[in-house]
Amino acid sequence: MSAFKTVRGMRDFLPEEAKMMKYIEGKARKIAELYGYKEIITPVVESHELLAAKAGEEVRLRMYAFKDLGGRMIALRPEFTPSVARLVATTLRNEPRPFRLFCMGSLYRYDEPQQGRYREFWQSNFELMGSNKPEADAEIIMLTNSLMETVGLKNCVFKLGHVGVLRGILSKEKVDEKTENEVMQLMDKKQYDDALKLVEGAGVSGKCVATLRKLVELKGGRIFEIIEKMKKYVKSYEKAVDAAENLQEILKLVLESGCEIDMTVDAGFSRGLEYYTGMIFEAYVPELDIALGGGGRYDRLIELFGGEPTPAVGIAHGIGRIMMAMQRQKTLKTGEENRVMMIPVKSELKGEALKISQMLRDADIPVEVEVMGRKVTKALEDADRRKIKYAIIVGEKELNEGAVVIRNLMKREQSTVKIEKIIEKLESKS
Amino acid sequence: MSAFKTVRGMRDFLPEEAKMMKYIEGKARKIAELYGYKEIITPVVESHELLAAKAGEEVRLRMYAFKDLGGRMIALRPEFTPSVARLVATTLRNEPRPFRLFCMGSLYRYDEPQQGRYREFWQSNFELMGSNKPEADAEIIMLTNSLMETVGLKNCVFKLGHVGVLRGILSKEKVDEKTENEVMQLMDKKQYDDALKLVEGAGVSGKCVATLRKLVELKGGRIFEIIEKMKKYVKSYEKAVDAAENLQEILKLVLESGCEIDMTVDAGFSRGLEYYTGMIFEAYVPELDIALGGGGRYDRLIELFGGEPTPAVGIAHGIGRIMMAMQRQKTLKTGEENRVMMIPVKSELKGEALKISQMLRDADIPVEVEVMGRKVTKALEDADRRKIKYAIIVGEKELNEGAVVIRNLMKREQSTVKIEKIIEKLESKS
Repeated sequence: MSAFKTVRGMRDFLPEEAKMMKYIEGKARKIAELYGYKEIITPVVESHELLAAKAGEEVRLRMYAFKDLGGRMIALRPEFTPSVARLVATTLRNEPRPFRLFCMGSLYRYDEPQQGRYREFWQSNFELMGSNKPEADAEIIMLTNSLMETVGLKNCVFKLGHVGVLRGILSKEKVDEKTENEVMQLMDKKQYDDALKLVEGAGVSGKCVATLRKLVELKGGRIFEIIEKMKKYVKSYEKAVDAAENLQEILKLVLESGCEIDMTVDAGFSRGLEYYTGMIFEAYVPELDIALGGGGRYDRLIELFGGEPTPAVGIAHGIGRIMMAMQRQKTLKTGEENRVMMIPVKSELKGEALKISQMLRDADIPVEVEVMGRKVTKALEDADRRKIKYAIIVGEKELNEGAVVIRNLMKREQSTVKIEKIIEKLESKS
Repeated sequence: MSAFKTVRGMRDFLPEEAKMMKYIEGKARKIAELYGYKEIITPVVESHELLAAKAGEEVRLRMYAFKDLGGRMIALRPEFTPSVARLVATTLRNEPRPFRLFCMGSLYRYDEPQQGRYREFWQSNFELMGSNKPEADAEIIMLTNSLMETVGLKNCVFKLGHVGVLRGILSKEKVDEKTENEVMQLMDKKQYDDALKLVEGAGVSGKCVATLRKLVELKGGRIFEIIEKMKKYVKSYEKAVDAAENLQEILKLVLESGCEIDMTVDAGFSRGLEYYTGMIFEAYVPELDIALGGGGRYDRLIELFGGEPTPAVGIAHGIGRIMMAMQRQKTLKTGEENRVMMIPVKSELKGEALKISQMLRDADIPVEVEVMGRKVTKALEDADRRKIKYAIIVGEKELNEGAVVIRNLMKREQSTVKIEKIIEKLESKS
């Protein structure tokens, strides 16, 4: 049956990978708890109107959009932002500021499948709403760093910028908003020459072009030196100077927090989405050339969606990409657990075997019961193949004395143990 | 904007409900671990051909089906079974038997929205593949009971039956398969009179109709007495007797395991899906008249999907329904946590406040940092409104002595505490 394949761009996660995905999700949820972000769950299916409203052209054209049986135009969410904005503009509109929201789940984009890019992908999303202060920006960077650390990733680098620097220059030069957005998008794609050409075509001053040219080459090195240079280059553009100082303040707070974090500033750094208004950043590891997460400040977002003006800063982390990074770095230890296989010697002892299994599970010990009716030797071979550590053999003779046989399949040794001593024995690591 | 609503039949979960959903999911995942079920993740989007192949008419007509941008006919999964069957028939085809699979996620059906029924819903799904033994059936019942217990539900009742009893009679009476399936579906909807009329119309013996009539009235009471009666009523239909004995054996094992579980047998119990072949069951609480979970044995399922014949027994639990049951029973304690709000007295102390916050998070204590630049009194009011237990006030005077002020907002008392003693103080519950 040709139907016996996943749809192009979709994938299954078999147990080992699924475990990593759920491990990362668990850590993201823990970070949310520790930083005070409340989880919300929004639907995968939203109205097309909502999802298309503020999406960039690229995202809008690649949505899974269709009519439902009632003739409504709906789509699978390509990002969390519209759903969160919907809630903030409606149900949560009177929530006292600040509020911190967390959501995690699957998203859908009809992109060309390639390494690390699927049409179904998972993100964890953190949004801090209501504060325009630099400590809010710092918090989003810090919690991203906490997530990368807590899943065990090494050598993570944060690339930082501030859209206010470029926008501050372009707006003072009276470049219209549409052109400004196009320039930002070209910058995002690192098509600097095209971006500069577009700016020149918009009739800006020669000083402006020269400044932009210097900015796009300004990156790496020591972060505060870069920012000082940035401030010097843009000194005749007040808003650009303000932006550089805002970035400086944010990074200063991050460092003062004691965060061990490798940051680099890129003055020409831009992110595609139009709604960013301030600091922007992405996190990378050397083993992978795609960002593990990206975000920044978007103070006008909620307004764009018809809600009250609400300053906001947020981040989306790619769960699948973090998994890839962990695989490259061989981060996850395949934890040797105290798994047990429970084997009744004959059919009449099945009930007893189930009873002992429940006792162990109550003590947090995973048990797989032999359910194939196999002889003990066959069942032991199977346990071996599954790399199960202990087999408990429930036999009549031992049971008459209130005991079972515990076999350590790694060490290939066994002993008779009283039922009430089983847990102690399994936990003694012997 | 009219787009500012969820699509009909879809819903948002705000923090309190989202927390319950994630709590239940966490418990289901824990049960999977304790019983040795490996988690897999399959896509929400599958080929329409796969999803429609063996779905009942009712499910097939209510799928979210559409063409993707490449012209493929795809759909949102209305159940997990086809995806699991796809994996078992392909990637997992050589996996040694038995194997235990667990999956959890969202499903989509275009049903008429009503209380407890949404168009997007969540299930946890357990499948035990490869064993046709009663201990496998018993395990599925036991783990469902463990889940209900572990989330704190009380008075859970398991309704049990066996499709082999009715099917054993109908097949011996040479009722054709199509009519047999229709009868089973009418039985599932409790339209017993229609079912009996259909059977009569199929030209069966008078004894058959009389037997069926007695069976549909046979329920409740002591389970083994019911099963004995069942065996007596159907004694001239060998397969039906075998089925009743199989059910007896399964229930005996469940009781021998020491499981405290309230079971009731319903001889006329049927479940809509055609692929059930053996024991079937559903779990209920008195406060809700919809099943919290349902499953049973479907030995022919994998075959139907083109895989190797593989005996199988499984269960799907409705996460949203379990949440509703918990709400009705007021099960979830709104755990009073050691949450902290961190308030720097002035701007220059923000970095220090962030640093202390990180120290507490490293010790697993949730901290919300004041990010609104408010005065201490305003920030304390806000902390109060959010029911945060502790405020830590970072002021210059105390900081010069390596200390902060900790205020217990419940008891309305405060004291100055050395930074290195903060964790101890917060955990001392004083």
